[in-house]
Amino acid sequence: MRVLGIDPGIATCGYAVVDEPPTPGREPVLATCGALRPEGAGPLRLAALFDGIRGLIGAHAPDATAVERLYHNRNVRTATEVGQARGVILLALVQAGLPVAEYTPTEVKLAVTGFGGADKAQMRRVVAARLRLMRPPRPDDAADAVGLCLCHLQGEGMRRLLEGGVPAAGP
Amino acid sequence: MRVLGIDPGIATCGYAVVDEPPTPGREPVLATCGALRPEGAGPLRLAALFDGIRGLIGAHAPDATAVERLYHNRNVRTATEVGQARGVILLALVQAGLPVAEYTPTEVKLAVTGFGGADKAQMRRVVAARLRLMRPPRPDDAADAVGLCLCHLQGEGMRRLLEGGVPAAGP
Repeated sequence: MRVLGIDPGIATCGYAVVDEPPTPGREPVLATCGALRPEGAGPLRLAALFDGIRGLIGAHAPDATAVERLYHNRNVRTATEVGQARGVILLALVQAGLPVAEYTPTEVKLAVTGFGGADKAQMRRVVAARLRLMRPPRPDDAADAVGLCLCHLQGEGMRRLLEGGVPAAGP
Repeated sequence: MRVLGIDPGIATCGYAVVDEPPTPGREPVLATCGALRPEGAGPLRLAALFDGIRGLIGAHAPDATAVERLYHNRNVRTATEVGQARGVILLALVQAGLPVAEYTPTEVKLAVTGFGGADKAQMRRVVAARLRLMRPPRPDDAADAVGLCLCHLQGEGMRRLLEGGVPAAGP
């Protein structure tokens, strides 16, 4: 399974593509990550973001997607702008027939570092260590997108385990 | 000129199509109005809204669009949801090559009734009277969309007048 993770934003939209571990028990593998910086203003910028997401889907052919869900934003104007960006991102994903999972920042931190209160620097260091990267992904939005992928892959792995049933203990 | 007005929302999205007055000094003409109620949940509902807006554009071939801009919403969660809906609406409009104008509710009330503090019932009555309708448009979201069209047409009329210059008084 290949996951496309997206940290929504209109000025900077982080993304990452991560493959599930090649064998159980190993760590996932980072295919690519970075940030879209759509140009233009207003609705034209939204259209550029939409095209950028479609480009990522076409180039990397993910099987699943994980998008950050934001509730902690206290600024209504920012919430509206991020909402607009999320709208066109989600549209691009469902138009491509991709399943969409949404995670809050706290869920991602818990899954990746084991600690929901981890700060951004800690998150990035754990992400780099788990994926055996020389240094944390840049920019921060890309690192957040990698975290979303890891969070999703862990949840999927756990779900499969539960669906398959736990082997009974031997006699 | 034919204007498509849109009052964004994900559960109910008001729309109206209004033509400029057939002769100067007359009132604009309502072509149609109503509300989209996209089905499904989450991203699929956004996709249904996007398809609905594209359907309106295809069916009514507007030359211009007017979309409500919201800043007064105090609830961040609602702002995010309306933002997502606005995102896919704006995308559908720019993909169709349409110019997008945005107006706040206060701007619309001022333009339509001459009073920025008009309540919703007053707005609807003035809209109905100006367009010579038997009764105010239903639902309320459709009436708001008609107001957006009237606001836009008035602004365009004024702009043309200013660009064309005011005829000099006769001798």
